[in-house]
Amino acid sequence: MDKKALALPFKDEWITVIENFIRSSVADAKANGVVVGLSGGLDSAVVAKLCARALGKNKVMTVILPDEINKGEDALKVANELGLEPKIVGISDIIGTIKDKFPNMERVVLGNVRARVRMVVLYYFANANNMLVAGTSNKSEIAVGYFTKYGDGASDILPIGDLYKTQVRILAEKIGIPDWVIRKKPSAELWVGQSDEDEIGITYDVLDKILYCFELGMSIDEVAKILGIDKSIVRKVYDMMVRSMHKRRRPHIAKVMLRTFGIDWREW
Amino acid sequence: MDKKALALPFKDEWITVIENFIRSSVADAKANGVVVGLSGGLDSAVVAKLCARALGKNKVMTVILPDEINKGEDALKVANELGLEPKIVGISDIIGTIKDKFPNMERVVLGNVRARVRMVVLYYFANANNMLVAGTSNKSEIAVGYFTKYGDGASDILPIGDLYKTQVRILAEKIGIPDWVIRKKPSAELWVGQSDEDEIGITYDVLDKILYCFELGMSIDEVAKILGIDKSIVRKVYDMMVRSMHKRRRPHIAKVMLRTFGIDWREW
Repeated sequence: MDKKALALPFKDEWITVIENFIRSSVADAKANGVVVGLSGGLDSAVVAKLCARALGKNKVMTVILPDEINKGEDALKVANELGLEPKIVGISDIIGTIKDKFPNMERVVLGNVRARVRMVVLYYFANANNMLVAGTSNKSEIAVGYFTKYGDGASDILPIGDLYKTQVRILAEKIGIPDWVIRKKPSAELWVGQSDEDEIGITYDVLDKILYCFELGMSIDEVAKILGIDKSIVRKVYDMMVRSMHKRRRPHIAKVMLRTFGIDWREW
Repeated sequence: MDKKALALPFKDEWITVIENFIRSSVADAKANGVVVGLSGGLDSAVVAKLCARALGKNKVMTVILPDEINKGEDALKVANELGLEPKIVGISDIIGTIKDKFPNMERVVLGNVRARVRMVVLYYFANANNMLVAGTSNKSEIAVGYFTKYGDGASDILPIGDLYKTQVRILAEKIGIPDWVIRKKPSAELWVGQSDEDEIGITYDVLDKILYCFELGMSIDEVAKILGIDKSIVRKVYDMMVRSMHKRRRPHIAKVMLRTFGIDWREW
């Protein structure tokens, strides 16, 4: 296989597939629409726009959750440029109440609390309005576990969950997401100055190529060779995938009976 | 098949299976132990005790989360009788901060917020101490979706997730859970006076028999006939199972690529 065959694919008809997915998910659930948390970043802008295209803007409730890390200015700018009318709910006070109880919280632990509080508020809107939460995780994040379990990892549907970050950028251009959003440095914004690529330790460009090779069924050695990347980097990505497996699973159940949910009780 | 063959089974060796499950889950995750939220009810008492038997009491962090609905007295009594030393963290103020933002929250919506805030605090302890959250859902609740998605439904392992409520009662007796806990009226305690059986609209005794018949592969008609129960009740249980399927799944991903997480990317 030559290196060119490994370029990440993108097909325009996928946009239709995703829009149909959003529409049928909402219809199946007899829901009134979807809730999308807008961060000001690329993924949430793309998901909000895809949902608006699929359902009409009036069935997409966008929510901005300003706190001390993300003040919400970019999110508001995105909403304005996409013509959406977001709800704005500050969450610093909720997080503050939790911080007061645990004054010596480490940065990562507090970051996880932050992600989960965002989820609680998004689900408030979903429950109160009989809507689904459309999550904004992409395939790169899902693969290496770069999300908070039951925080941003918690949603009902994942419209771009099968697209790597570099593919999300291509999609974004095609559906008219503003250029400044596409070029923005990706951050989970769980603390000041956080950067996805610094934290993962590898650019999305390289990460996505490695992940796509794994998707094609290659071994660590094959990936390193075909991409001309040091084997230790490929192994690092592989290890991140293995270590984060539990975040992509349902809770494990101790099997004792005949048929067990999530194991062998057939239902989906 | 005669009716007697339909009695819910219980085998003493299941206790060993569950304890091994808890031990190996903690070892595999290289975790320091488990966090269990103690409510004062049966399920959490059983899970805490099983974890203590499997890991030793010093690796089980029990947490009581008093609020305006559950003041924590029964939970404290359970902890004392089982010889556990719980952390106690009031959560009324966290919930109050959220309530202030949405003053007209409906009872069920507020109940869901409450369950999710409990999760946020339990996961704070898990993350801060490198521990797993041992969830306390039983098979009856899981089957009919009687839990809050990403609230009490969110955990890392479910030690009693394959045991129906009536089987949990048998297990409880065998491991020495105090009688007053076993006989206590089951409640999710999301609002004052809430009762599982009132809300589900059927006793656990009947519910579990119906669910077990479904587990054995029977149709609605067969279940109604063999148990001598009105078909409308059996159908109601069936409908609850179908409607709650999404709560037992991972978030749905729109498939566009070759292999998709949670669909056909093989990893567990």
